[in-house]
Amino acid sequence: MFLCDTPEQAWVYINRVVEPPSRNLATLLSQHPVEKVAYGIYHQESWIGPVLGESAARRDWLRQQEDLDTLARIGARLITPESTEWPDFDRAFRFFGNSDAPTTFDREAIPPVCLWVRGRPLKETAAQSVAVVGTRAISPYGTQATRKVVADLAKHQWTIVSGGALGVDTVAHSAALEMHTPTIAVAACGIDYDYPARNAPLFHRIAQTGTVVSEFAPGTTPQRHRFLSRNRLVAAMTAGTVVVEAAFRSGALNTLNWAEALGKVTMAVPGPITTAGSLGCHQRIQENRAQLVTSGEEIRELIGKIGEADSGAQYELDFAANPVQSLSRNELKVYDAVPVDSGHTAEDIARDAGMRVPLVVHLLVILEKQALIRREGKNWIKLLNHE
Amino acid sequence: MFLCDTPEQAWVYINRVVEPPSRNLATLLSQHPVEKVAYGIYHQESWIGPVLGESAARRDWLRQQEDLDTLARIGARLITPESTEWPDFDRAFRFFGNSDAPTTFDREAIPPVCLWVRGRPLKETAAQSVAVVGTRAISPYGTQATRKVVADLAKHQWTIVSGGALGVDTVAHSAALEMHTPTIAVAACGIDYDYPARNAPLFHRIAQTGTVVSEFAPGTTPQRHRFLSRNRLVAAMTAGTVVVEAAFRSGALNTLNWAEALGKVTMAVPGPITTAGSLGCHQRIQENRAQLVTSGEEIRELIGKIGEADSGAQYELDFAANPVQSLSRNELKVYDAVPVDSGHTAEDIARDAGMRVPLVVHLLVILEKQALIRREGKNWIKLLNHE
Repeated sequence: MFLCDTPEQAWVYINRVVEPPSRNLATLLSQHPVEKVAYGIYHQESWIGPVLGESAARRDWLRQQEDLDTLARIGARLITPESTEWPDFDRAFRFFGNSDAPTTFDREAIPPVCLWVRGRPLKETAAQSVAVVGTRAISPYGTQATRKVVADLAKHQWTIVSGGALGVDTVAHSAALEMHTPTIAVAACGIDYDYPARNAPLFHRIAQTGTVVSEFAPGTTPQRHRFLSRNRLVAAMTAGTVVVEAAFRSGALNTLNWAEALGKVTMAVPGPITTAGSLGCHQRIQENRAQLVTSGEEIRELIGKIGEADSGAQYELDFAANPVQSLSRNELKVYDAVPVDSGHTAEDIARDAGMRVPLVVHLLVILEKQALIRREGKNWIKLLNHE
Repeated sequence: MFLCDTPEQAWVYINRVVEPPSRNLATLLSQHPVEKVAYGIYHQESWIGPVLGESAARRDWLRQQEDLDTLARIGARLITPESTEWPDFDRAFRFFGNSDAPTTFDREAIPPVCLWVRGRPLKETAAQSVAVVGTRAISPYGTQATRKVVADLAKHQWTIVSGGALGVDTVAHSAALEMHTPTIAVAACGIDYDYPARNAPLFHRIAQTGTVVSEFAPGTTPQRHRFLSRNRLVAAMTAGTVVVEAAFRSGALNTLNWAEALGKVTMAVPGPITTAGSLGCHQRIQENRAQLVTSGEEIRELIGKIGEADSGAQYELDFAANPVQSLSRNELKVYDAVPVDSGHTAEDIARDAGMRVPLVVHLLVILEKQALIRREGKNWIKLLNHE
């Protein structure tokens, strides 16, 4: 029986039948009420467009009531962009989806449509948070280093966000609990599914003082592509990501990629050169893609600067006299580097602003949409009517 | 008895009575034969100028013959800028002494006047070399890391230059000997003086396949200011300096300062954040004053780039069609960043060239003296008659 009379039932239905993240579904939801979208998907109405294909395999999995029962049984709840505890994901993803030259990130670079949550309100726990991630194959040094980093952050009641995996994730969550600061575990499977199994007691403890969160419907199993989607939420809900220990090609570096793409602070902890455990960290530092950090204090300092500038910009946004005043710190850096008379290419501007080209390209497009700058061939030129 | 009939006796005399390094003495020697300078100092002739004061305390220490006997006894020799084995120190120090705004380095930033040497010809051993320095209070990790870095450099027969001190210096020298690559110990005391005493056997072994060198007269004791002077020679005779383990304010960072001031490649090896041993290394990396390196291979790569460019420039210098072609890689980077029409400040140019301001200022002065650029107030402008 198709039962989507309430928005809650509709959210549960679409989250079940369309694998997140789906940009097409997000577009539909930005234009229609969720009940209408759910109805359209179930009845395969043509206006649903590409989501018909995405939902074809599961559209008759009518498990809304079971899913809601599961939520109730494990003490979890469903939250949506309308919920008061919904974090400002739109701001995190604002660089994406409006580029003429989509990056590989663009496809997945969207907010979740809804989230399954256990524990304290997400917006509250995520407010002042940093992602601490790293290898599953943690070394004794990695354990010590993770605990050192968390200790200082805990002293200032920062929330530690991680992926709930074995290794660095587990040490980061456990240290946070032990040091009485909130922690958030972002799962790559259904909220009712404890993965890895041996961390079931950990997730239970996290939910008591922090938050366990998933964008996947109950019963969803952990799979490789879901780990990657999960990493984007870890990066998106924090002000910055620090990788503690990561060998070459460690999955933790994917979270760092997301932080970088989202314009967040990217950080890596160095370690011994005599083992391979910190190779990924060292490489990112060498490539200027992560800043070397040795303590929670340095992390707070790096994030604090951005955070202050951001909240300052946010304040000014509410009372903005002109659009330039409402720019974020990074937007302003790019805006300042765009010349008035002759144009500069994105590469020139990136060099002048001391920022990476992909981020600069995103920000240039944003500034163009605000009519603060204009494009002429490959060159960007400042428009002067705003200052 | 004042006996300076031969140049050798004269060099021995002035090296004994004027504490190196002395810019005033260097200036005298650039204008007069060494015998005349020695005679003038001993007889306190007025044209000797400020060196009269510098030599007042020791001018009657007439120990030329004892010093030469000491040399013979320990199998050492005196070398001077005329010797075939004299390295090209002038090139290393070419940034200095012609600045209108001398830095704190300028006073000591001069080549040695002469050197006392045991072992293989210095120019030969120093030809393809890198400085490996660090803390005296070496940790087990520091020992491993030093050996790892030396191992790859040894495979390619690079010479390891260090200061002969306990800790990282000793491990670097010992690893080089063990791995059959040359090593150079630069002493902060007389060549006849084994400091630290327990390294006497090490210095003896170094002299068999490498070189032990000092700019101080025989019998000179190690003192703090001599360690700092010695560090400048370690940095000057190598293509780059790598600090393996250095806590906050470690003396090894002074060698890195010298390498930086001399425009050499500056590198630091990361380490655990859970001890203080690598704090100095991490700080320099964070300040962009040293590049993070994890292996000898990375060191060779960083130095190789500069080395190739330098030797290429040197080749072209000999057959130079115009002065621009004879510029070193760094000079060329600065030259390219100087605009043609309107001027740029040194800070602008440093940003465009991606180099640090003090080095850029030095290079700008050099380019100005070659009439390749001109100064207009605070701005620098390119002169076009050379291209």
